[in-house]
Amino acid sequence: MMATGAIVSDIEIARQARMERIGVIAAELGLHEEEWEGYGRYKAKIDLNVLRRLENKPEGKLILVTSINPTAAGEGKTTVSVGLAQALNRIGRKTVLAVREPSLGPCFGLKGGAAGGGYSQVVPMEDINLHFTGDMHAVTSAHNLLAALIDNHLQQGNSLGLDPRRIVWKRVVDMNDRALRHIMIGMGGKTEGVPREDGFEITVASEIMAILCLTEGLGELKEALSRMLIGYTYTGQAVYVRDLQAQGAMAVLLKEAVKPNLVQTLENTPALVHGGPFANIAHGCNSLTATRMALKLGEYAVTEAGFGADLGAEKFLHIKCGKGSLSPAAVVIVATVRALKLHGGAAKDVLAREDLAALARGFANLQKHAESIAAVRLPFVVAVNEFPTDTEGEVELLKKLCREHGFAVELCRVWEQGGAGGEGLARAVVAAAEGAGEGFVPAYRADDEIPVKAEAIARTFYGAEGVNFSDKARKQIEEFKKNGWDKLPLCMAKTQYSLSDQAALVGRPEGFTITIRELKPSLGAGFIVAMTGDILRMPGLPKVPAALRMDIDQDGTVHGLF
Amino acid sequence: MMATGAIVSDIEIARQARMERIGVIAAELGLHEEEWEGYGRYKAKIDLNVLRRLENKPEGKLILVTSINPTAAGEGKTTVSVGLAQALNRIGRKTVLAVREPSLGPCFGLKGGAAGGGYSQVVPMEDINLHFTGDMHAVTSAHNLLAALIDNHLQQGNSLGLDPRRIVWKRVVDMNDRALRHIMIGMGGKTEGVPREDGFEITVASEIMAILCLTEGLGELKEALSRMLIGYTYTGQAVYVRDLQAQGAMAVLLKEAVKPNLVQTLENTPALVHGGPFANIAHGCNSLTATRMALKLGEYAVTEAGFGADLGAEKFLHIKCGKGSLSPAAVVIVATVRALKLHGGAAKDVLAREDLAALARGFANLQKHAESIAAVRLPFVVAVNEFPTDTEGEVELLKKLCREHGFAVELCRVWEQGGAGGEGLARAVVAAAEGAGEGFVPAYRADDEIPVKAEAIARTFYGAEGVNFSDKARKQIEEFKKNGWDKLPLCMAKTQYSLSDQAALVGRPEGFTITIRELKPSLGAGFIVAMTGDILRMPGLPKVPAALRMDIDQDGTVHGLF
Repeated sequence: MMATGAIVSDIEIARQARMERIGVIAAELGLHEEEWEGYGRYKAKIDLNVLRRLENKPEGKLILVTSINPTAAGEGKTTVSVGLAQALNRIGRKTVLAVREPSLGPCFGLKGGAAGGGYSQVVPMEDINLHFTGDMHAVTSAHNLLAALIDNHLQQGNSLGLDPRRIVWKRVVDMNDRALRHIMIGMGGKTEGVPREDGFEITVASEIMAILCLTEGLGELKEALSRMLIGYTYTGQAVYVRDLQAQGAMAVLLKEAVKPNLVQTLENTPALVHGGPFANIAHGCNSLTATRMALKLGEYAVTEAGFGADLGAEKFLHIKCGKGSLSPAAVVIVATVRALKLHGGAAKDVLAREDLAALARGFANLQKHAESIAAVRLPFVVAVNEFPTDTEGEVELLKKLCREHGFAVELCRVWEQGGAGGEGLARAVVAAAEGAGEGFVPAYRADDEIPVKAEAIARTFYGAEGVNFSDKARKQIEEFKKNGWDKLPLCMAKTQYSLSDQAALVGRPEGFTITIRELKPSLGAGFIVAMTGDILRMPGLPKVPAALRMDIDQDGTVHGLF
Repeated sequence: MMATGAIVSDIEIARQARMERIGVIAAELGLHEEEWEGYGRYKAKIDLNVLRRLENKPEGKLILVTSINPTAAGEGKTTVSVGLAQALNRIGRKTVLAVREPSLGPCFGLKGGAAGGGYSQVVPMEDINLHFTGDMHAVTSAHNLLAALIDNHLQQGNSLGLDPRRIVWKRVVDMNDRALRHIMIGMGGKTEGVPREDGFEITVASEIMAILCLTEGLGELKEALSRMLIGYTYTGQAVYVRDLQAQGAMAVLLKEAVKPNLVQTLENTPALVHGGPFANIAHGCNSLTATRMALKLGEYAVTEAGFGADLGAEKFLHIKCGKGSLSPAAVVIVATVRALKLHGGAAKDVLAREDLAALARGFANLQKHAESIAAVRLPFVVAVNEFPTDTEGEVELLKKLCREHGFAVELCRVWEQGGAGGEGLARAVVAAAEGAGEGFVPAYRADDEIPVKAEAIARTFYGAEGVNFSDKARKQIEEFKKNGWDKLPLCMAKTQYSLSDQAALVGRPEGFTITIRELKPSLGAGFIVAMTGDILRMPGLPKVPAALRMDIDQDGTVHGLF
């Protein structure tokens, strides 16, 4: 990710790491031998029985890492999360990291791998990026089993009277494959299925992934799967997974995927890498189970949320913390000089040049996110993730602006120095977390009316003046009410690049409203997705996909994953 | 499978098994600690370096288990393979089993699981049937990555000039999903891909699976992947994977899948369960790497081929043994009284009734397969897999018929008794294998003309009078010659139920010819598929899929896998 000025690549650093056998990491966490199963030497799945054994143990302190609105410059949120967890361990706080697992699609498309960077990485990096312990594949299989059962139901007589034009359950593949976005299936005649329009989404967009990340145990998982909406009958009645009785077989396919994966950072800090739902049409954080386990096993648990605080932190708080009765002890807001300059109107190709004016303007973006976190009564620290191109003047200005606004701020150099580069940040986080915070105060309640919930989010987290609804969305609000689907938290699907619903409005736009075009019930996951624009659920490959740079030697050495 | 009269189900027997930790099994095989990686407690992947370390060690004796033409009664070929391996160990021959890994699709469709039966099973049965070590998923990912790269190539300007109407590379999913057989993709407008006809096949039908099972090492794998045919240009030129430079990324996805999986049988016999290509459009046996490893690690290696000897053994011998320079020391031909009665014209619902006449007629099917094996100069033993419903008279008649024809024959009761029920068979196999055999004499050479190869197979293994070619196939023979694709072994895709190409012609049909309708070049795998009929590459789900009987308890206990 943040490779500017680096001499050694992420994969080279990762390969040189002195990893501990995963059994050593597990033992240090106090796990019993029968509570984990190794997947190779450096990965393990942890049994959910651990949570039962530790039921009465008090939970550690939860630290949420979020950021300003992402820019093309990269903010390094995962790198800071990894570095902070390492640093907390260095200053004597037993800390467990909990982060999302990457998806194959983007790895072979644009990104070429994702597990932190520099000296703040989660390892074994190659394994984590390639198949890992099979969780994504299990979600894909369970999702497509349901799809096959639905089309088989149509083919075998359609006793439920499902309308082939109103099936909302699509198929998934963990690959960036735009040609599968809009397809026609069931062609070829009477024995070859019932013709209908369909489409593939990428696996992480599956509602099953969101469910995997919001349930704690197989019983609850099955219950959530059974609630998912499949489509509608010819007479307009909703049809659920339970009507097909598919939840049992789907849960069978997910029985290992529900278990958190234990790996380590480059400094042998234990890391739970588990689950990875989209951060727009879903809530975008690692599994509740992994976070719970990190809180039970560590004094501190460091976790991150997708995109900026407007999307990621908001959903982390209202959806995940709401579901799991969690409250962060402190929030870290990651910013970089480079990204703030982009928010202040600087051009991407001159970021290496000092530009105090752009930085001062772009600071407004950080300021808004800080105000949002303060509005829900959480203490926070701004982490300035330093780049080699940052000038002393820029860094000083950013610190000064933070102090003027009363924001705790710390520089960190975790990419270059690992945990040692984050000790100041770690101490500031401990100070914030051990202060007398009142805990998270939600901006809305799940049983508020849908427009009330949307207004609360848009005003508190985006700084919007209000929310408009399309005619379609207004009709849906009535329909959801009638179906009893409206008493769920909202999951906002909005561009990540702007506080508003217009990607180009960087910085801190003001005087804007957002428009909710359409709602989508994720009844299994337990939220209502509110779409403010066209959200891509199936990415495409670029002109030169990352895949074309990849290779492997006879001895198994991989090239082209960074 | 062969559950007639059984009181305890396969899964109950499997759950009661006293498995050894996989490290114990690995140590008994003489594997060094760094040569294997555990995937949980009872599964491991074995590093290919083992083959380099043992390069100069002489190989053990290879025993191929094949059968009569399969019938609705079930022959229990895998069960006999497992039981025989257990029995060989009991009589003091260090034996390693090598078999295919099952595919998820059929498991959730009709079969509900497949890993032997009764007291001759490979365990952990649930894991083997569900995701296992992720090999199938890796094949699916590599296959669909190539498909995405192809459609992206079309979208990004199509510099190769690929004709969207002549792309032969389809997509795969490991699920029985008939509605995906014939689809239209790339719909939705200019940004959504190029519209074209496409289809999904089941993962085990992927040419990548065949390649995985016929290459020994990553270098050879990449080379084979690069040879695969993608489609044709507008001017009719063949386009290969190497033209897209996709083989490197595909091999990266397959880097763990190339390693054989080590598990054990119910009696702790080591079992390599690895790879599982279709037995019609591909060659239908486990990986060459697993077989090679079994031969290096054991005095005996027991392996099986798909379907009956006409398809499975023939392809095992000409394709797999040809590729790997292997020769079985002996062949076991599995038959059952019940199945032979079906071949003799008995009705399925009266199989429990003694019918000596039907058995005597059906014997002709076994006789033909025995003659085929003798024709390629291999010693064999007929294994009569006993069922509780077999009468003494039937068993005696079958033994008598075998003896009259000079066939070694042994009863076995491995389903009911495990290895103890196969000791007689094991002794007969050892006697055959340790005799002065001359080794496999192929029925054809790869550089024979295509019609010569087809005639040789049809006459020697089917008892056909000859082979007809459709006009299309005749045209293709010329085209293949021109492209230099014709000097490869043939892979016959034929119904498994009959020696002929007509499924209904059970027993031993005579005076028939077979018709090759179409050829398909599998240039990466290194064979030419000869299609004698419509071969389903994507199964459908039945009226009541096995999935609907499956469930899982809160504690992880799975129901409905048998």
